[in-house]
Amino acid sequence: MSELATICGVGTTKFGKQPETPARELAWEAVSEAILDAAITPGQIDAVFAGTVFGDPGVATRSLQQLGISGVPIITIENACASSTSAFHEGCASISSGRYETVLAFGIETMTASFSGAISPIPSDPEGAQGFAMPALYGMSAARYQHEFGVTDEQLAAVSVKNHGHGRHNARAQHQKAPTIDEVLESPVISSPLTLLQCCSIADAAAAAVLRPPGTPGGVRVLSSSLKSGGLWDQRSELVWGWQIVADTARAAYEEAGVSALDIDVFEVHDAFTIGEIVTTEALGLAELGAGGRLVESGHTTLGGNQPVNPSGGLLSRGHPLGATGLAQIAEIVWQLRGDAGPRQVPDARLGVVETMGGGTAGVDGNACVVTVLETPASRNAISPA
Amino acid sequence: MSELATICGVGTTKFGKQPETPARELAWEAVSEAILDAAITPGQIDAVFAGTVFGDPGVATRSLQQLGISGVPIITIENACASSTSAFHEGCASISSGRYETVLAFGIETMTASFSGAISPIPSDPEGAQGFAMPALYGMSAARYQHEFGVTDEQLAAVSVKNHGHGRHNARAQHQKAPTIDEVLESPVISSPLTLLQCCSIADAAAAAVLRPPGTPGGVRVLSSSLKSGGLWDQRSELVWGWQIVADTARAAYEEAGVSALDIDVFEVHDAFTIGEIVTTEALGLAELGAGGRLVESGHTTLGGNQPVNPSGGLLSRGHPLGATGLAQIAEIVWQLRGDAGPRQVPDARLGVVETMGGGTAGVDGNACVVTVLETPASRNAISPA
Repeated sequence: MSELATICGVGTTKFGKQPETPARELAWEAVSEAILDAAITPGQIDAVFAGTVFGDPGVATRSLQQLGISGVPIITIENACASSTSAFHEGCASISSGRYETVLAFGIETMTASFSGAISPIPSDPEGAQGFAMPALYGMSAARYQHEFGVTDEQLAAVSVKNHGHGRHNARAQHQKAPTIDEVLESPVISSPLTLLQCCSIADAAAAAVLRPPGTPGGVRVLSSSLKSGGLWDQRSELVWGWQIVADTARAAYEEAGVSALDIDVFEVHDAFTIGEIVTTEALGLAELGAGGRLVESGHTTLGGNQPVNPSGGLLSRGHPLGATGLAQIAEIVWQLRGDAGPRQVPDARLGVVETMGGGTAGVDGNACVVTVLETPASRNAISPA
Repeated sequence: MSELATICGVGTTKFGKQPETPARELAWEAVSEAILDAAITPGQIDAVFAGTVFGDPGVATRSLQQLGISGVPIITIENACASSTSAFHEGCASISSGRYETVLAFGIETMTASFSGAISPIPSDPEGAQGFAMPALYGMSAARYQHEFGVTDEQLAAVSVKNHGHGRHNARAQHQKAPTIDEVLESPVISSPLTLLQCCSIADAAAAAVLRPPGTPGGVRVLSSSLKSGGLWDQRSELVWGWQIVADTARAAYEEAGVSALDIDVFEVHDAFTIGEIVTTEALGLAELGAGGRLVESGHTTLGGNQPVNPSGGLLSRGHPLGATGLAQIAEIVWQLRGDAGPRQVPDARLGVVETMGGGTAGVDGNACVVTVLETPASRNAISPA
């Protein structure tokens, strides 16, 4: 297996509504944790790749200055919900090409001071002008999927029950209560068939990872990272919006890493809405087309099952601070592959996958998708072989 | 001399107030010109590095779709006013490392539909909370500079007279009228000592460049590109805000290219306000510290002088659509080095420099600075040696 880079340290804040906490304090918390975890000093960082969607211009530069990170190139990337996995992707490429020795990947978003609920659609888009906020887009996707493949309301709700159940073991998650199927279905309808507990919530948070060259001892190995942007989505397709871009991106990432879906022990995927996880697990190769609803019902993707998906609680439980989400997913998989995930540890996890979906409109198959394949540190692998 | 990449084509829209023109139409205009200029097809583009500051999330992906550019990675970078030169910088690195063969660098900004004048300061910054919009920041910088070095109001105004004079020869510039020194000084005071005609105006525009590997025949050669982020600015320094970061970035770019300031035939620099060009020409090595006012008065940097600065008209005349500015500067130097600059052509221009300054606050020495050194196509060089 090739290797792009090593993740030597990760850090995150708590996730949730913290509108009084300025971006620079969130940055301090996440980045100092990652730096300490990597056992480096801020002065060793050669470059920063940051991700944010709605952050003020210059937010990364301003936030990192107090940590002594200045002078070096700071590249801030917006790629909708995949912003910080895009930053991670670019960071890995810069390490892999020998451009930099030590890179900080950083994601930040402060949303609850600016938004009170769903993010407004973009009025300059034809879809936005018709009110297609994300819940509406995913709601239509869920309805279409139910029509094509017969997934039930209960199967949709099962994703929420599973992920909120996982999130109870994650002290940093925004939501700590695990609802039942009935409670999910009886929560207020947001965009039929999706109910309140099937929609992620906005949040404030930061997350970070320190990247070093392949072979750095003790770190989690980045076997591959793939990033694709979406093309037009053909409404006549039996595949709902987003399916194809996830499948294409995953195929490229698996191929580059030399693995298949069956080899993966643990996944963090983009469950912004319950239908998202169902579609994504299929596109990632965990189930046949149309079988994602039965997959979650079977327990295969629940902690204790064969291939847990979203042990952190996912976006549904952890919360979804757009630009911080991707690196929070990365952090979770790093903790899992190092055996540091505590009560939500997937036993003997050696290969993990992160998938982040960024944006989309009714006419577009997602703005972007990033899939990365991570492997347990070589030392840990050697001590207790699978 | 080493070489990072070749610029095989450039394109821009007209600059100015065009609030009714959607981003996708501006994109079409600039990108199709660059693609035709490079004699490639959209399908050859392996990746896009885009720059925007206030663009809607996903603006690059949405804008480029109609041109058939989709599926490939699209990385959108925000780096204040240096956003699209940062995109250019990352694009060059991706070519130079062999990651991609053909890259589109793209900048876009639609401002006049959202802003009526100066961009609002960021309220979460201590400086922003005190109302430090950019004109106030540059105004204080000018006052301090006048105090330290005795630059006169007339010398400040001379930058505006020169650049507006150049802009009369640029059909794509927002402002086509050349004022006199008196007219500049008698225009309304915006932030003392800066008057209206010493401040750039917001605009709507797009700009683009096609990058290919070093040695691609007929293209302008990228000898170096340097990007730095700003550290804290010490108010006790005799250097005004921004001086040091431009000097440091330029030194790195000159060194990498193996050139000195005296070798450069033509410059495009960040004259968002007249004081900006004065300080920047010093930091770039065209004049001693404190001598930038006398430099512009001498005619050395005027078209017809030895080292013209901002032949395009600069930000003062061309207008300043933040995320499109850097690539517009690149486009101008490309035209100059190919001998395609028409009535504003610098005779026998062989080496050109672009400098873009991104943001800053009263306490920070600029968010970012990018300096790149470009050389005339090898073929042109061979035909008529200097």
